[in-house]
Amino acid sequence: MAEEPPSVRVKIVLGYDGSAFSGWAAQPGRRTVQAVLSEALGQVLRLPGPAEITAAGRTDAGVHARGQVAHLDVPAEWWAADGHKLVRRLSGVLPPDVRVFGAEPVPDGFDARFSALWRRYSYRVCDDRALADPLERHRTLWYPRRLDLDAMNEAAGRLLGEHDFAAFCRRREGATTIRALLRLEWRRDDVGIAVARVVADAFCHNMVRALMGALIPVGEGRRAVNWPLGVLEAGVRDPGVRVMPAHGLCLEEVGYPPDDELAARADATRQVRVCRTASGG
Amino acid sequence: MAEEPPSVRVKIVLGYDGSAFSGWAAQPGRRTVQAVLSEALGQVLRLPGPAEITAAGRTDAGVHARGQVAHLDVPAEWWAADGHKLVRRLSGVLPPDVRVFGAEPVPDGFDARFSALWRRYSYRVCDDRALADPLERHRTLWYPRRLDLDAMNEAAGRLLGEHDFAAFCRRREGATTIRALLRLEWRRDDVGIAVARVVADAFCHNMVRALMGALIPVGEGRRAVNWPLGVLEAGVRDPGVRVMPAHGLCLEEVGYPPDDELAARADATRQVRVCRTASGG
Repeated sequence: MAEEPPSVRVKIVLGYDGSAFSGWAAQPGRRTVQAVLSEALGQVLRLPGPAEITAAGRTDAGVHARGQVAHLDVPAEWWAADGHKLVRRLSGVLPPDVRVFGAEPVPDGFDARFSALWRRYSYRVCDDRALADPLERHRTLWYPRRLDLDAMNEAAGRLLGEHDFAAFCRRREGATTIRALLRLEWRRDDVGIAVARVVADAFCHNMVRALMGALIPVGEGRRAVNWPLGVLEAGVRDPGVRVMPAHGLCLEEVGYPPDDELAARADATRQVRVCRTASGG
Repeated sequence: MAEEPPSVRVKIVLGYDGSAFSGWAAQPGRRTVQAVLSEALGQVLRLPGPAEITAAGRTDAGVHARGQVAHLDVPAEWWAADGHKLVRRLSGVLPPDVRVFGAEPVPDGFDARFSALWRRYSYRVCDDRALADPLERHRTLWYPRRLDLDAMNEAAGRLLGEHDFAAFCRRREGATTIRALLRLEWRRDDVGIAVARVVADAFCHNMVRALMGALIPVGEGRRAVNWPLGVLEAGVRDPGVRVMPAHGLCLEEVGYPPDDELAARADATRQVRVCRTASGG
């Protein structure tokens, strides 16, 4: 039996405009980020086919990323000779709606998905017609009514901590929906766009967009500040919670522990997380 | 002979993503901002056809705007009853790549084009692969080599003032190419993107993009700091000056004098400016 040639585990950081993608995860007949990137990597690394890659966040159709992280194993010989050219070569091969910002070798225990400590997403809402910039429309929800961010932040604060977020997730059989919501706050950027910053250890499917859909009615004054907490505690999908549109959402950053804790973190996550949809914003 | 019904002159401020437009100025068979906006205004104002509108800057195909200004005359009766609803109604009728941010009545002497004191454009260049954000690609030039902004600013400073910019303009018969360049400077934004800020009383056709094409080789070290001034002084188009791509360019703001000087400014401009392409970035 031929032995596998030695390889180097490489972490890549990438961004994409999700508009023209059916999300991250490869699906037959669909244009996905994973398929496009695997193909480009296979070509650059001169593999016989697409490279195998694993991402931190399996973003949905239309969701963007500026700090997505993925890992792959690169033949050690190729990396030693050409590793420093990987980003440049990929930029020549990838379509302009996906860019790899950086690539670096990491310890073998690194797993983009299971070693991650947290994911940070943003959600952008323009609630003022005078600020609806066409140049930003592909990544900003235009909302017809003004939002009271103070009320939304008060409601958001009550959701922090480790809970069963079943009420905000698309459930899958045999998957836990317990997550630790570390941060959820709204502020206006320097232009006046309302931007949510959402951090959790991981997110269930649809979770960020459903959280947005619970907070926005509070910002409008249509729901009480305590309503989102009531939904959380009820533990079942509430038809009053709209899953907000994908194009406002962006995976901004993924956090990892120091190198010597990577493998242990990955093992721990794999054991705890029965959920197969651990990280899809 | 029937008299024209009384009207109110209205100034509107608008933005657009130029990607899918053949520029501002109406052309048969092409999708232009002027045609789309005239049509929408005609519909909202219940005119028998498209409204007549005049813009400050007749931007080229692919050029964006965030602070374009235009004027039109609105039936006084309509304005009195529904003027406060104009922006909202337009937002329901316009496609998402054009937005009107505001509309206000102005003195009759106001002319969006001829009353303007200055136009400000920006030009965005990403010269670092690690910063090439797919979400900004439609309004940022990706440049493969690093640029020295200090050298570019030194070269730019030598071009300021009133000059014949024939070397940087597409010439038209009987049109002056004398312009006052008030400001031209590069700086990096908080992300690290190189952004030029360019202000002049008005711009000839292609002028901003040709100025960018003269400065970028200086930033690369391919041309001396004094080269753009030499081109200016030679007074003829230099084949070494590339007209940079449209998608990096955006009309950011147009400045006007106080109300009581509007009409005088418009008269003065009309007399001085033989140039018919006065304001096309």
